[in-house]
Formats: sequence, structure tokens, C-alpha cells
Amino acid sequence: MPVNLPEIVPSSLTPIQGIRLGWAESNIKTENRKDLLVIEICDGSAVSGVFTQNRFCAAPVTLCKQHLTAVKNNTISGIKALVVNTGNANAGTGEQGMLDALTTCQHLAEIMAIPVESILPFSTGVILEHLPMDKLLAGLPLAVKNLTTDNWTDAASAIMTTDIAPKAYATQVKVGDDKIHITGISKGAGMIHPNMATMLGYVATDAHITQSLLDSMTKEIADLSFNCISVDGDTSTNDSFIVIATGKSDAPAITSANDKGYQEVFNALLETSQYLAKAIVRDGEGATKFITVTVKGALSVEEAKTIGFSIGKSPLVKTAMFASDPNLGRVLAAIGYASRECESLANLDTNQLELYFGDLLVAEKGGRAASYKEDDGQTIMNEAEIDMTVQLHRGNKESTIWTCDFSYDYVKINAEYRT
Amino acid sequence: MPVNLPEIVPSSLTPIQGIRLGWAESNIKTENRKDLLVIEICDGSAVSGVFTQNRFCAAPVTLCKQHLTAVKNNTISGIKALVVNTGNANAGTGEQGMLDALTTCQHLAEIMAIPVESILPFSTGVILEHLPMDKLLAGLPLAVKNLTTDNWTDAASAIMTTDIAPKAYATQVKVGDDKIHITGISKGAGMIHPNMATMLGYVATDAHITQSLLDSMTKEIADLSFNCISVDGDTSTNDSFIVIATGKSDAPAITSANDKGYQEVFNALLETSQYLAKAIVRDGEGATKFITVTVKGALSVEEAKTIGFSIGKSPLVKTAMFASDPNLGRVLAAIGYASRECESLANLDTNQLELYFGDLLVAEKGGRAASYKEDDGQTIMNEAEIDMTVQLHRGNKESTIWTCDFSYDYVKINAEYRT
Repeated sequence: MPVNLPEIVPSSLTPIQGIRLGWAESNIKTENRKDLLVIEICDGSAVSGVFTQNRFCAAPVTLCKQHLTAVKNNTISGIKALVVNTGNANAGTGEQGMLDALTTCQHLAEIMAIPVESILPFSTGVILEHLPMDKLLAGLPLAVKNLTTDNWTDAASAIMTTDIAPKAYATQVKVGDDKIHITGISKGAGMIHPNMATMLGYVATDAHITQSLLDSMTKEIADLSFNCISVDGDTSTNDSFIVIATGKSDAPAITSANDKGYQEVFNALLETSQYLAKAIVRDGEGATKFITVTVKGALSVEEAKTIGFSIGKSPLVKTAMFASDPNLGRVLAAIGYASRECESLANLDTNQLELYFGDLLVAEKGGRAASYKEDDGQTIMNEAEIDMTVQLHRGNKESTIWTCDFSYDYVKINAEYRT
Repeated sequence: MPVNLPEIVPSSLTPIQGIRLGWAESNIKTENRKDLLVIEICDGSAVSGVFTQNRFCAAPVTLCKQHLTAVKNNTISGIKALVVNTGNANAGTGEQGMLDALTTCQHLAEIMAIPVESILPFSTGVILEHLPMDKLLAGLPLAVKNLTTDNWTDAASAIMTTDIAPKAYATQVKVGDDKIHITGISKGAGMIHPNMATMLGYVATDAHITQSLLDSMTKEIADLSFNCISVDGDTSTNDSFIVIATGKSDAPAITSANDKGYQEVFNALLETSQYLAKAIVRDGEGATKFITVTVKGALSVEEAKTIGFSIGKSPLVKTAMFASDPNLGRVLAAIGYASRECESLANLDTNQLELYFGDLLVAEKGGRAASYKEDDGQTIMNEAEIDMTVQLHRGNKESTIWTCDFSYDYVKINAEYRT
């Protein structure tokens, strides 16, 4: 079971004016399950995306980037629809994969009477297999027919692969007298799920935000949410994160970071994205613990994030967490070798840093803290949610990452997946 | 059981003229086991070392570096002895740890009547605990009393922690009419063993090699052997690799890479070091497969090595190998995200590269090879030794790394170690 991930309350997922969602069961991999989602986006919306850095990126990711570039170049007026299929990632599929992604957009463009380039396609599921195009294309008109504004809960289910639980979140903020609404969904249960190309996140708001501002906000929010999680350190070929701003609320347009409402909307988008990112870790393969690592007092955010992930990705730390073992040594060693991936850490003074489990000082001056009692560490490790803080005392930058433990079930899920 | 690691044949471990080894049972962690080793080195030897880059490096590592610097500065005439204890790593022990390492050297210096700075100390075992100095110091005279030339097999056992098998290798080369002998030992069963500070390697030869040449050879050999292995991607706080050249053979001195015999001796040292490094992987925690990844056609060795380790460290690849699953997708994804750790790979063209399992072409043109049959892949995966080759077709550099799979036993060993 996911670690402390509350069930979705459908009524809490506020519709976003200007957004309609429709799903279909198109039997892409499994019969009788929602596996195709169309999101219709009203005219005048700004849409921004960030995508996987994996060089084996999936065909739909390549097409998404091309279509977003077409918007930037004013070749088309804006993005009008997203189409997401689960069950097949269309990754590692060569030229045929590109053709299939394009054909998907062409068919949807015809049905919805919109330009091909105004559609962003997404696929998630098994890789190295070609999309079953007949089934997918047959599902498109059904999904379009289904379009309604209050379909967010179904949409969250329609993009799942082997996620145990659907993931959604909604919030709202007031700017002056006007309310701005934000609703989002995500999927993923590993940076790559076994043989899966995994992480997808979609967040929509009725705020009015200009395209270029939304672009920079999306990048910043991704760096503070989806780019701060790790289940197994593997980066998927399909990771995509999309933010849509429809501009349908009555609040005034936000055109710069100095505008009224900017900070409130940014914070609400971030809150939503962090919830959805953390939900992926809570539903991580075999996870029994949800672990937050905060690194403070760094010279740069990169230093802090590198140390955070060095701890969060270490198999030795993660197996110790699974065993509820307050194993200081493994955490210290992982801090010590973070310099492999961040040159400025080569002069890290390990005698200056402090390590805390929760509020408990466990290590300082290059070794175990004199005041530390293992029983106290054990009490903290017994919890399902574990916080660690590293204070480097060499600067004022910080970063927080989220990860889970490494259990027998992780090996089981990943060793047995294809057999 | 280790994967295809032959038992040591004691008679094969040729003594090296100028080297004597002595061990003791000093009850550092466990009763009735060899846990202390002294290696005596004759006058006129060259001794070189490379050490962990971990910022939490152990006290003995810091002292080793200081003493080798003293040799470089001609403060002392050379290294005369190594002392290695197992059972306790003296890492994460702060100021007291430095004092303990120094005290160990001081006592041994007195017993052997040599300068304190001519001694290199090494520790391996649990970290964050202080050395039991009474026991260790009591063992020193016993180990010195035991010094003989033919003790290599016992020495290999005396430095083990939780290694299942001792690791040793010997070879010889002829330079003209003269024979040069090389014998070495290593220990380790994970880049960090659970709570352990792990990898140690000692290789000795009777070749006559000048200090500065041996320094550069040692670095080059380490990069092609101990720096090419990964069990779990964690870098220990105590990793040390030492090469000793006693100069006692009748072969002429080697003073530069152009000298007669240089290449033969280099190759023999490399063969020995690679055997010892691979032995650590074969004895990797929970290992059931020994995996060799060769990356060819790279722009730089760094590119090749980064891709090799990206595959070799991926939990998804390693769990698939455990399941004997020819899971192409996970290997391709790991190649694709290697650019995270090597900037020049950002423009890697995945449509150009080929992936082979053994001699079998399994992927090309961005996806599965048309000729590939999964049954053929399965046959290769069923073996205990698996070779993978990536041909990038973008340059002429290459690198080979060795790793093992990720099994239930890895989680078991590392989750249960302290409980």
C-alpha cells in the first residue's frame, strides 16, 4: 500500500473553467479499463511543459517539444488538446514510433477540428512495443464524446499504469476578491516503472498567466517538485510535466513576477505539484517508508540537491530505512561521496557538518554525536515518515528531496515483472 | 556463493623478494580469527597508493596520504611497513580516530625500529566505532614475530570482513632472461559493505620501478581495475589500493614507459589488479551474476565509463539480471539517462547506437533489432556470466566495467546487518 497517501475525494477536485476531460476504454493493453484520456483546452490558454532529459526519449515527447516550439514561433495560436494513452509508452520504437504519435494527433485533430500541431501527445506503459494504432484510434472519438469539466477523478485513473492508487490534488487561492482554482493529476510509481516509461503530471489553473511567465514558472516548479523525487534513481524515457493556465478566472492577468497575485498563484501551483510528486514516491515500488531529506547551509542549491539525492539514492541507506535501522554510517558515507557528482563538494569539511534524524542531532564533528542514544534514533526510524536534515554550515542555500525505502518487494516487483 | 571465483591455491602465490607478511589474532571484533596484518617492505622499494575520494574518509586514509607525502618530500627514505586491521574501520571517528591511527603507527615503529612516517595504516570493518586500542596494540608484536615471505594466503584471510572468500592472485613475466613476480590480495564485498568501510587491495612485485613511474602506473592501473567495479554504487570511506615494487628481481630498473619490460610489467600488474577487483564483484553482496559492460565508439573514456556505470548501477537493470530477464528497455533507458552525469552525452544519437548481449545484436535504430528473438536473449541471460556491449559509433574510445546483479539477498544482507 502507498505510504500515507489519502484516497481521492472526487468532490474536492474542482473543475477548471476552460478545461474538459474525456476518457475511453480502448483495450490498448488490458480490457475493461480506462486507458485513453483527452484533455480539451480553451482558446487563449497558456500551456507550458518540461520533459525527460533521457536521450532515449519517447516519440510523443519529441512531438510535444515540436508542437510547443510551433506555439513559440506563432505557427499556431496555442495548444488546444492533450491526448494520453496508458498501456504502451511508444518509447524505443524508432521511426514507426514517431509516425504513430503523429497519426494519433492527426486523427484527434480531425475529430476536434483543430490544427495537428495544437495537440500534445503522451504515452505511458511498456516500452519497445509499437502502439496498437487501430485500438487507440478507435478510442479517440469515444473519449472526445465523453468530454466534461468534472472528470478529474476518472482522468487520474485513466493515466495509471501499475500505480496502486490514482493521484490528484486541488487547491484555490484568493487574489483580491477573485478566486483562482488549481487542479492536477499525476502518475508513476518509480522513476521508471519496470519496463515502464513512467512519470506524468498535469496541473491546470483558471489563472490568467502569460505564456513566457508560465514557461519560467513551470520550470521553477518542476525543479522544486517532480525534479526532487527519486524512487530508484532511474530516469524514465517519457517523463512529462504540463501546466495549463486557462485565464478564465475573473482575477487580473499575471504578466510578471512582480504582479499582484503572482506569489499566491506560484505557491498554489507549487503546493499542487509537490503533492503530486510526493504521491509518486508514496506509491513507489515496494515503498514502506516516505523519506524527506533536507540539506541546508550549502554553497549552492546544486550542492544541497546532490547530497540529498546521494543519500536518497543510496541502496545501502534505503535498505537500512526498510529495516528501520538508524544507520548513521551509511548516511555519512553517502554525504561523503556526493562530491563524485558535484565538484564544489570536493572541499566539504565533514568535521563541520551536522546530521539530524527529525530534531535529533545524531552526528557532528566527523562522527556520532556524543549526546546521541541509539534508542532515540530507533524511535524515529520506526515511523513510516522519516525526516533527515544535513546542516553543512558553509553557505545559505538549501534543497529538499523526497524518496522511499528499498524493500524485498522492490526486488520482487522488478525481478518478476516480465516473467 | 561468489560467482565463479576459484579457491586460492596457496602454492601459486609466489613470495615476492623483499616482502614479509605476519598476522595475529587480536580479537578486535571477533575471537579466534586473523584480524591484524603487518607487511614488511625492504629498503629501496617504491610504494604508491590511491585512496577513496569520499570526504568522510577514514583516519588511516588521511595518515597514509600524509606519510606518502613525507616520502615525496624526502622527509623519510621510503615506506617500510603496512599495518592492516579488520573488524573496525576507524572511520567517522573524529579526532580520536586520528590519534588512534597515529598511535598504531608509533607502536609498530618502535617494535620494528623504523620511522613512524614510514608506516601506512589501514583499517576495515564497522564504522563510527573507536578502535579497541589495547587489543590492537597487543597484537602488533605477535604479527611482527610471525613475519615470513610465504604468508600471502593467510594475509588474504586476515584482511577479510564479511567477504565470503579470500581473494589473491599471482603471475609472472619474463623480461629478457629475468623473471619478474607479482602477487596481490584484496578484500571487499560491496563498494561499502553494510556499515563497513570496505575495499582494500595490495599488489607487490619484485620489479625495480622508480617511484614517480610507479605512482603514474598505479593511478592508471586503478582506473582500469578497482575504479571499474560497482556492487551497489556506494563509495567506501576506506578504499585503498597500494602497489609495492621491491626491486629485488635481477631485471634492470624500469624508469620510463619506454624502457624494456615496462609494458610487460604494466600488463602483469594490471592483470593482477583486474583479477582482484573482479573478485570483489564476484563476491558482491547477494551476487548471482557477474556482468561485464563494455562501451565502445565513445568520444572519451569518460563517456564510455559513464554509460557503463549507468547500466551497471541501475537497480532496474540489476534486478532484471537477477531474474535472468533480457530486459532491453531498462538497459536502453540507462544509456539514455547517462547524460545526467556526463555533459558531452547530451547530444548522444540513440538512433546510431547498437546494443549487444554477448555477440547477439539486440537493439539498433532506437529500438529492438529486427533480427532479435527473445529466446536467444533468454539463453544468454540464463548464464552466470553476462557480457553486454554498447557500440556508440561516435568516436574511438572505450571502457569496460564489472558489476553484479541485485538480489533478494542484497536487501536481506543490508536490511538485517545490524539487527
